[in-house]
Amino acid sequence: MTAVTLGIDVGGTNTKIGFVDRHGKCLVSTHIPTGADEPFDNFLKNVFATVDDLKSKAGEIDMVAVGIGAPNANYYNGKIEKAVNLKGWGEEVAIADLMQDHFKVPVAITNDANAAALGEMKFGVAQGMKNFIVVTLGTGLGSGIIVNGDLLYGHDGFAGELGHINVVEDGRICGCGRRGCLETYVSATGIKRTMFELLADNNGNSLLSGKTFEQLTAKDIFDAAEDGDALAKEAFDVTGEILGKALADTIAIFSPEAIVLFGGLASAGEYITEPTRAAMEENCLSLFKGKTRLVVSNLEGDNTAILGSSALAWQEYEKLQKA
Amino acid sequence: MTAVTLGIDVGGTNTKIGFVDRHGKCLVSTHIPTGADEPFDNFLKNVFATVDDLKSKAGEIDMVAVGIGAPNANYYNGKIEKAVNLKGWGEEVAIADLMQDHFKVPVAITNDANAAALGEMKFGVAQGMKNFIVVTLGTGLGSGIIVNGDLLYGHDGFAGELGHINVVEDGRICGCGRRGCLETYVSATGIKRTMFELLADNNGNSLLSGKTFEQLTAKDIFDAAEDGDALAKEAFDVTGEILGKALADTIAIFSPEAIVLFGGLASAGEYITEPTRAAMEENCLSLFKGKTRLVVSNLEGDNTAILGSSALAWQEYEKLQKA
Repeated sequence: MTAVTLGIDVGGTNTKIGFVDRHGKCLVSTHIPTGADEPFDNFLKNVFATVDDLKSKAGEIDMVAVGIGAPNANYYNGKIEKAVNLKGWGEEVAIADLMQDHFKVPVAITNDANAAALGEMKFGVAQGMKNFIVVTLGTGLGSGIIVNGDLLYGHDGFAGELGHINVVEDGRICGCGRRGCLETYVSATGIKRTMFELLADNNGNSLLSGKTFEQLTAKDIFDAAEDGDALAKEAFDVTGEILGKALADTIAIFSPEAIVLFGGLASAGEYITEPTRAAMEENCLSLFKGKTRLVVSNLEGDNTAILGSSALAWQEYEKLQKA
Repeated sequence: MTAVTLGIDVGGTNTKIGFVDRHGKCLVSTHIPTGADEPFDNFLKNVFATVDDLKSKAGEIDMVAVGIGAPNANYYNGKIEKAVNLKGWGEEVAIADLMQDHFKVPVAITNDANAAALGEMKFGVAQGMKNFIVVTLGTGLGSGIIVNGDLLYGHDGFAGELGHINVVEDGRICGCGRRGCLETYVSATGIKRTMFELLADNNGNSLLSGKTFEQLTAKDIFDAAEDGDALAKEAFDVTGEILGKALADTIAIFSPEAIVLFGGLASAGEYITEPTRAAMEENCLSLFKGKTRLVVSNLEGDNTAILGSSALAWQEYEKLQKA
């Protein structure tokens, strides 16, 4: 019997599910539609049936815990609360309790950025570190902050909203209803907005001048940069400079051993890391200069989100073993 | 025999020393000149003699631990490192080890803002809290951040430099060599600089127009506000607005139960708390609105700094008892 945890990553569209062993090997995995507009019960039944199916394929396993990464997930009470992308699920769902009733093993939940941080600490580039920060660069910007080897949750479970610190006074409109939040500049959406500003400023002098706002993706900007497009490169420079300045402030607050970039935009490699690192070092308090490493996640592939949720499950399991 | 800890607060000019019991009662205390330009050995001998003298006055006590609050104090290695205000002491002094050799009890050191946070948690307004932030408003702005009931030290011991996050792009020159740091606006020095900007902007239309930059103190600005001076009140409003915005970002990162204002400027009461609270709530992510309390320290008088250092000693003592 191989001891495994079940990792579940709830996205707005799809939910990924898989069994992961102690060493971060994903034995089997699959994904199902989340059904964000349907009742939560449908989702739950679908997960249970899918897990039964995965069990039949996984061989001799002993499932010891379940970890769930989900938007607006509250670690403290096990509920998903007011998740705007999961409308059919209502104000809140007690997902941890309901899963625990069914699976009869410990179940823990947290948001996807926190799960990513635990994944890096257990299986990725942050192994052995006790103070570091993962910045997830997807549609928005999330952060998972590890302090003394444990996640920073704050008093209500919702700490780590680095994407919503203000970086430009009266800056870009943010989905949160305010202006100038970091994620309006630094995210897949943010770099697209920057690209459109640059197209406007430079009278469309770019390979990307034929793209509509709806069409343009961060991947397009990366491809154009690879093809030598100066404006596309500048979009990465602008994005990295704003991120690097914000990270310099973050270092003054946390003095972390490393900052790990994670997610789509991080896969642009040096286009994003070089300007970020330069701005981070330039704006760092001298006390901290050169002390904090900027690294890109080495967890790759379809199962990354499952690994993060699974790492949460392993952490809970190990805490219970110790207690 | 009353169990006590020895609290030592090392300032640039004076060092405060006292014995504090488990309940935060300071049995005896005194202060000595720090002698920042003289060799560290002189300081050490002076402390030892002073403690002997205090012991003779304190009655039947059992000194179980020593806590030291000092600039640039590194909790991890027990050293004061590169303290610009303690020039005679050189690059670093192993103050914790040297004290431990002499007193034969555990000795811990940390910076004054961290000591203040421990003092609030053990004896002050933050009793019972596990996630809160103390902001010290003195000549500069310091912060002590408590996460899960313990101080945030970061990987090198120097976390919590909230005074050096950037709040104004290309803003005021800071002592750290950069521009626009929070403490250049929000501190006793910061409000003085704001007052001078307002005097310039309003052609000196204020009770404070007869003061030189060298003469003017934060207390003068408070007194002028009390006397109905509109510009002095505006200086507090400007200061509070910048602080409140910075705290809104801090809340997005930490989701603390409370933020405690501490030190000279905090004693201006509503002049500073009202604009700070208004800007903090206005700029808060909706998820956090109304959740974090803004409070002023209730530790008062000459022995506050001793209480903080003593709280550090009690924490170390209790950790060792548990281990």
